[in-house]
Amino acid sequence: MELSAKLRWSNEEKFNAEIGKGRKIELNSSDKMGSAFTPMELFLVSLAGCTAMDVQWIMSRERQKVEKFEISIKGKRRDEDPRYFETIDLAYTIGGPNITKNAVERAIRLSQERYCSVHAMLKENVRLNVTYTIANGKDAQQTYTYATPATE
Amino acid sequence: MELSAKLRWSNEEKFNAEIGKGRKIELNSSDKMGSAFTPMELFLVSLAGCTAMDVQWIMSRERQKVEKFEISIKGKRRDEDPRYFETIDLAYTIGGPNITKNAVERAIRLSQERYCSVHAMLKENVRLNVTYTIANGKDAQQTYTYATPATE
Repeated sequence: MELSAKLRWSNEEKFNAEIGKGRKIELNSSDKMGSAFTPMELFLVSLAGCTAMDVQWIMSRERQKVEKFEISIKGKRRDEDPRYFETIDLAYTIGGPNITKNAVERAIRLSQERYCSVHAMLKENVRLNVTYTIANGKDAQQTYTYATPATE
Repeated sequence: MELSAKLRWSNEEKFNAEIGKGRKIELNSSDKMGSAFTPMELFLVSLAGCTAMDVQWIMSRERQKVEKFEISIKGKRRDEDPRYFETIDLAYTIGGPNITKNAVERAIRLSQERYCSVHAMLKENVRLNVTYTIANGKDAQQTYTYATPATE
């Protein structure tokens, strides 16, 4: 399966991206950007979106009734070139009447290890800190740290 | 430097992403998506945008007058999970009255090897095929293959 996009330079460091037929995103390099995004911002959204969809899909297959699902992602860039993210914090918050810790942990594990295509392209020099918070409405809301299995 | 984003589940596999104050992108998993994007589409835009800004910046520093600059990016996904891009074709087209092959080749090399933060996070299992086309208005437009230097 192929995906494609086209970027056209507008001015300074502003580019217009077009994906498929007519879906558009503006890119810029500064943070004074109106409705534009930086490439590194889109990268974070891409990674978070990829695992978000996996986890949502796995939870629905396991008949875990999800009522609320949010992911916060935060990336810390290196100070030197290339200024990639040396750490990325990924925090899942899942709410629903019968959500169990085991199901969430398993869904995150399957995403990180088997399904998430963006994650599968990431070098080990990007450290992921993963946490998840469960709000089932019965027990007090709790946050857990997801322990990445030792690298094969 | 830190960047962050928040994704909120809407329904099915649709998520709303918010970056900074009020900049928003819709994510969805299907290709019948209105104005939404898939995570893998955003990944391509992120990678293309990153190197686009590098090359634009380097060319301007080298007093190469760029009048037109486009990047096409195409990713071919694996058939099996994780369905990451096993090959990505990146095609630069640069036009301007005095654009030289050497300057373009050097700008691409600096981006790929030193500056592009998204590229620096990519595993070697993602194969990049890079080409560039120069239109200087004098010579016939030509397309060259950028040869990635041997991995250190």
